[in-house]
Amino acid sequence: MKNILLCVLLAGTSPVLAQQNDLIRFVNPMVGTARMGHTYPGATVPFGMVQLSPDTDTIPYAVNGKYNPEVYRYCAGYQYNDPTLVGFSHTHFSGTGHSDLGDILLMPTQGALQLNPGTADKPQSGYRSAFQHRNEQASPNYYSVLLDDHRIKAELTTSTRVGFHRYSFEDAGDGHIILDLIHGIYPYENKSVWTFMRMENDSLLTGYRQTNGWARTRTQYFAITFSKPVKSYGYRNFAPKEVYKGFWGKFDQYNNFPEMAGSQLRAWFDFDVKAGESIQVKVALSPVSTAGAVANLRAEIPHWDFEQVKAAGQALWQQELQKIQVEMLTEADKTNFYTALYHACLTPTVYADVDGRYRGIDQNIHQADGFTHYTTFSLWDTYRALHPWLNLMQPQRNADMVRSMLAHYDQSAHKMLPVWSHHANENWCMIGYHSVSVIADAAIKGNTGFDAHAALNACVATARHRSYDGLGYYIDLGYVPEDKNGSSVSKTLEYAYDDWCIAQLAKKLGEKAVYLEFSQRAGNYRNVWDAGTGYMRPRLSNGAFRKDFDVLSTHGQGFIEGNAWNYSLYVPHEPDTLIKMMGGRSAFVRHLDSLFSMPLPDHHFAGTEDISRDGIIGNYVHGNEPSHHVAYLYPFAGAPHRTQALVRQIIDSMYRPTPDGLGGNDDCGQMSAWYLFSSLGFYPVAPGSDQYVLGSPLVKSALISFPNGNKLEISAKNQGKGRVYVKTVRLNGQLLKGHLISHDQLTAGGKLEFELSAKPVK
Amino acid sequence: MKNILLCVLLAGTSPVLAQQNDLIRFVNPMVGTARMGHTYPGATVPFGMVQLSPDTDTIPYAVNGKYNPEVYRYCAGYQYNDPTLVGFSHTHFSGTGHSDLGDILLMPTQGALQLNPGTADKPQSGYRSAFQHRNEQASPNYYSVLLDDHRIKAELTTSTRVGFHRYSFEDAGDGHIILDLIHGIYPYENKSVWTFMRMENDSLLTGYRQTNGWARTRTQYFAITFSKPVKSYGYRNFAPKEVYKGFWGKFDQYNNFPEMAGSQLRAWFDFDVKAGESIQVKVALSPVSTAGAVANLRAEIPHWDFEQVKAAGQALWQQELQKIQVEMLTEADKTNFYTALYHACLTPTVYADVDGRYRGIDQNIHQADGFTHYTTFSLWDTYRALHPWLNLMQPQRNADMVRSMLAHYDQSAHKMLPVWSHHANENWCMIGYHSVSVIADAAIKGNTGFDAHAALNACVATARHRSYDGLGYYIDLGYVPEDKNGSSVSKTLEYAYDDWCIAQLAKKLGEKAVYLEFSQRAGNYRNVWDAGTGYMRPRLSNGAFRKDFDVLSTHGQGFIEGNAWNYSLYVPHEPDTLIKMMGGRSAFVRHLDSLFSMPLPDHHFAGTEDISRDGIIGNYVHGNEPSHHVAYLYPFAGAPHRTQALVRQIIDSMYRPTPDGLGGNDDCGQMSAWYLFSSLGFYPVAPGSDQYVLGSPLVKSALISFPNGNKLEISAKNQGKGRVYVKTVRLNGQLLKGHLISHDQLTAGGKLEFELSAKPVK
Repeated sequence: MKNILLCVLLAGTSPVLAQQNDLIRFVNPMVGTARMGHTYPGATVPFGMVQLSPDTDTIPYAVNGKYNPEVYRYCAGYQYNDPTLVGFSHTHFSGTGHSDLGDILLMPTQGALQLNPGTADKPQSGYRSAFQHRNEQASPNYYSVLLDDHRIKAELTTSTRVGFHRYSFEDAGDGHIILDLIHGIYPYENKSVWTFMRMENDSLLTGYRQTNGWARTRTQYFAITFSKPVKSYGYRNFAPKEVYKGFWGKFDQYNNFPEMAGSQLRAWFDFDVKAGESIQVKVALSPVSTAGAVANLRAEIPHWDFEQVKAAGQALWQQELQKIQVEMLTEADKTNFYTALYHACLTPTVYADVDGRYRGIDQNIHQADGFTHYTTFSLWDTYRALHPWLNLMQPQRNADMVRSMLAHYDQSAHKMLPVWSHHANENWCMIGYHSVSVIADAAIKGNTGFDAHAALNACVATARHRSYDGLGYYIDLGYVPEDKNGSSVSKTLEYAYDDWCIAQLAKKLGEKAVYLEFSQRAGNYRNVWDAGTGYMRPRLSNGAFRKDFDVLSTHGQGFIEGNAWNYSLYVPHEPDTLIKMMGGRSAFVRHLDSLFSMPLPDHHFAGTEDISRDGIIGNYVHGNEPSHHVAYLYPFAGAPHRTQALVRQIIDSMYRPTPDGLGGNDDCGQMSAWYLFSSLGFYPVAPGSDQYVLGSPLVKSALISFPNGNKLEISAKNQGKGRVYVKTVRLNGQLLKGHLISHDQLTAGGKLEFELSAKPVK
Repeated sequence: MKNILLCVLLAGTSPVLAQQNDLIRFVNPMVGTARMGHTYPGATVPFGMVQLSPDTDTIPYAVNGKYNPEVYRYCAGYQYNDPTLVGFSHTHFSGTGHSDLGDILLMPTQGALQLNPGTADKPQSGYRSAFQHRNEQASPNYYSVLLDDHRIKAELTTSTRVGFHRYSFEDAGDGHIILDLIHGIYPYENKSVWTFMRMENDSLLTGYRQTNGWARTRTQYFAITFSKPVKSYGYRNFAPKEVYKGFWGKFDQYNNFPEMAGSQLRAWFDFDVKAGESIQVKVALSPVSTAGAVANLRAEIPHWDFEQVKAAGQALWQQELQKIQVEMLTEADKTNFYTALYHACLTPTVYADVDGRYRGIDQNIHQADGFTHYTTFSLWDTYRALHPWLNLMQPQRNADMVRSMLAHYDQSAHKMLPVWSHHANENWCMIGYHSVSVIADAAIKGNTGFDAHAALNACVATARHRSYDGLGYYIDLGYVPEDKNGSSVSKTLEYAYDDWCIAQLAKKLGEKAVYLEFSQRAGNYRNVWDAGTGYMRPRLSNGAFRKDFDVLSTHGQGFIEGNAWNYSLYVPHEPDTLIKMMGGRSAFVRHLDSLFSMPLPDHHFAGTEDISRDGIIGNYVHGNEPSHHVAYLYPFAGAPHRTQALVRQIIDSMYRPTPDGLGGNDDCGQMSAWYLFSSLGFYPVAPGSDQYVLGSPLVKSALISFPNGNKLEISAKNQGKGRVYVKTVRLNGQLLKGHLISHDQLTAGGKLEFELSAKPVK
């Protein structure tokens, strides 16, 4: 009966589905690994705790005490054009513009033991190795590379909490596995605060490393097991000063001594290897303890079958990818699509042991009861499209992410929701309190997987935290004064939007006083509007606008990662008012057109962060987030055809299926989520509302399987190059009026039909 | 009925009992605080986790990278002759000869805020203060002092896990409480590895400090609560380099910012104080987490009644002290006795939260199921008399201490029992594996509070650990060769004794093979006996004795904390064989007499560690442990009268009720336990046997209440100055033959009557 039922079900689905049982091949993890994409090519499972990936260099954060701008290229550890790699570490951010992690670097070597990485121009000077891209393979949950200098093939795969290495030695001889616990991303002299390791038996090592970096007080616990007994092992402490040895001096504690500790350690593990022999290594992580890491190891991979782990992880990926079955014009588009879908399934990451215990921001151990605890909330980026995307496609995970944010709030000494948090730390990066957007968006769209009333309280407490980043001034004056707190216009605009989100949530929950308070605050964007220049403009505490004002410059002008041109369009919650302020619909359209067509002088571009030169169109900066909604503002001014054309232009120019295919940092999937929405034909301009603005789909067709069981088939009649304009949109046969479609309309499923045309339909 | 019963019971007991309901007044915690006693005068409860005591200076461990011998004087933080003190810290060893701890120093000040301790010659240069002993009071669980510079009376008391401070300000004004987290005992530049603190609300601070010292990887968690809201607070990081600030820079994180972190922090807490106002502070410790510290705080002292806490702790002391009710010749003797009893109830210390959770040596959190977990095992010292004393008077605690050692074994990467362990660390200080003595002694004497078979396995594994401190050579050669491993004679002798202990335990458990193996090893002391010189002497790996040999020197001669004269007498388990080797009874007595009468040249004394000049008698070094059994060897050679005289001489000269009253380090109570046994008239020459050697009691009478409910009344007829010789000993009226009394004889209770005389009875 079951088999018959299955056949019937398959027969009843779209023909697309049956073809696409190997969507993994359309994912290219190399996309974004060159230049500023800051993605990593290594192995991971969806939202996995382990991101096991090659690092091509260890670039110091500072040289002679001065910030070293080169470090920025290594936010994800890997730069595609590097000729060598230093090893494989277990934690990586995907697409960030600042960084941390790179924990527990393993590197297999052969021949003389070398404990320093050496330099890229002389790989023989250290344990690193040259490698060739032709000997490298990257796909979901599998990465392999031939290490030329050591003639070792390294293969990587993972489960959620365990990295699995297979090192195949071409030659017989002295095999070493180097464990570099100084190595890390964004490292500097004192980053490794303390390291503790124990050889528990002849093949199991446990330990932890504590770092002071972007995460100020971070501890990564681990358990490492080798597939054959270690012949001999040892470590060296590379700390410049290690005064106190005590009575440990009576031992040779650096060789085959089972307890190792110090601030800057590199260890090695020796094996006699035969030609062609594979040595396998499993590395489990834990945020809790080494005991937690051992438990994760035993629970997730209680065997040595590499292929089984690889297949299990790839099945998880297939499961994620097949939620959207697309037909596209080209293979390249399909790769772009599924790679974007892949990148939008990496972050936030699971941050708890198999038993649900995790380290909170208070550094105490907590139990996640009834939810999966996540970390890495790059909220200034991801509230815009990634979390709305997750709320659409992964509402359960998104609810658990909200619960993780609420746990952060409960455990925070500041009693604030996360701003930018990772690994039991708030790193305070960027501005705003965009957790409230994620929370309100989820609640407004009917996500009931968390306590909305508790969430509102957390939002309100966060938004009333006077000592946070100019917020006291904002509350008192209605804007952040630039003379008191920099990036004041960006902060004012983003606080106002966040406040609107809180108001929407309060309204839904019937909390009238809160609704009124925050609706009032939501209008604060007006307080930085300078009608004289027609831009949002920094204001001083005396009420005057600041005199010195360059509308093209990014730095020191009251903005952050954006200039006045871009940020002046940041009123996602009240575009109609913005249009009025800007002189009405026609003027607004002309203004937007100028944005997309004006030349951006080189000296202004140089000041733009985190993007490549091709990450901009005119003065529109897609590589940074503040403009992500801008192309979708035209419909509010009656010019949806401009959105349709521009969205397709942005997709074409900013997303390519090549290592250098991303025009800017992927930012934990935000850039990819923009692509996913846009290629399907809609975008959440104002998360916190249940509306999406219609654009122009890139897909020929897409079959979306929502977790509620409903399926939405999107089709684009006349899809083709140049045919970017939307003639009609029909939902289940009914013509859609206006430029919006609601969350409920989408998730109810059915057919969403776009009819495209080569010419604008006005 | 109850009251009547009580009266009857009281009426039935010795008249001594009724008088002694305030034994606390006979305890003087100042004893041993001058010179080398290395005791601390502060407040603690029996075996308490918190030892809250004043530290008179912060002496660097090294100056310009070179060990600073001055640091040694501050093993317990306090030196009686110092004119100033720097504050009150919460963890102290009692009587050690190396050190650590001194965690969480608080100091109340008034006036301008000073964050450096300043110097003793200019107390105004820092937060420290001058003080006078006349304004100081020290008694069990209560310490108070007037801080002259700040006109603040500081009072301290404790519960097991919480320190309670009462600071009474004479003057109105700006009150500060300094929290110095750089301060510590045996500090050096890098000792503070990391510190993390959170202001949880207006009066609760939580945090932890991690150190690298004698304990290599140690974390002390705490929770501090103030009796009134903090007006303002802040911290400074005194680390020479603190490169990474990240995005925290957007805040003023040094003032009223609730999350503080860095490697070397000092914080302050400000209060407006009125004249005469008291500010109270409770500081809870935890080895587990800040949440554990908060739970300990709430469970143990959920109120602000200082007097109640003081009284509760003093009641615990009275309970311990009244277990032995003594009559003595002088008030000074009585103070010596109860102070020794006090010092023998300090260590090991509880090391677990109120819920039984503790940090193991693997740095994981474990649950102590069915026992109290202890730490601070100074085993090279304490196996001799302190643990036998605890086994006699506190068998339940001693069993829990054994269980704590077995937990250490289970959790150790080395799979070894503790050598010298504290605070979840093995510090490897001194030699031997004397855990096995403590375990065997407990088991042989019928202590069934632990799994003896598991304990035997742990003992055997420890004793077979070839890579430990010359043990592989010892196993192969029957001795430790001096050319391979220093202090080789001391190690050989102590290993042999330890092996005998293992054999005794194996015999009791019927493990014949183990018994035979370790009985064989127990004879290894013969392998370092040089019949030619008549001394134990270092041997080389080629079998020859080392040529260069100075029998009076302590260093580099194959011994540790003892010279050949003393160590040659170290065969506590087979004194009869030793006597034979040394030429028979008469020759042995003459040899011992020489030891106690020969002059020790100054240049040899200078090489003797850890003792004052008055810590020796002739060449007998009471201030160090290896000779502690030596005065009790005479009876084996038929000269018990020499023991009787010498024991009284040692008591008289080495124990005085004054700050400088101890002739050497009290060593976690070992010196005090020697006193307790000796003053009662017996001593455990060979722990691991159930026999005590009889001496000559100092008490006039003593009523010992054993935990089994039995009472032993010891009396000394004719007790008096000069009447040190024992004429007869009667147990329950029966004349005791020979020089031994068994554990069962003692603990069965009854009457033990010594008849003393001014003349030796041969």
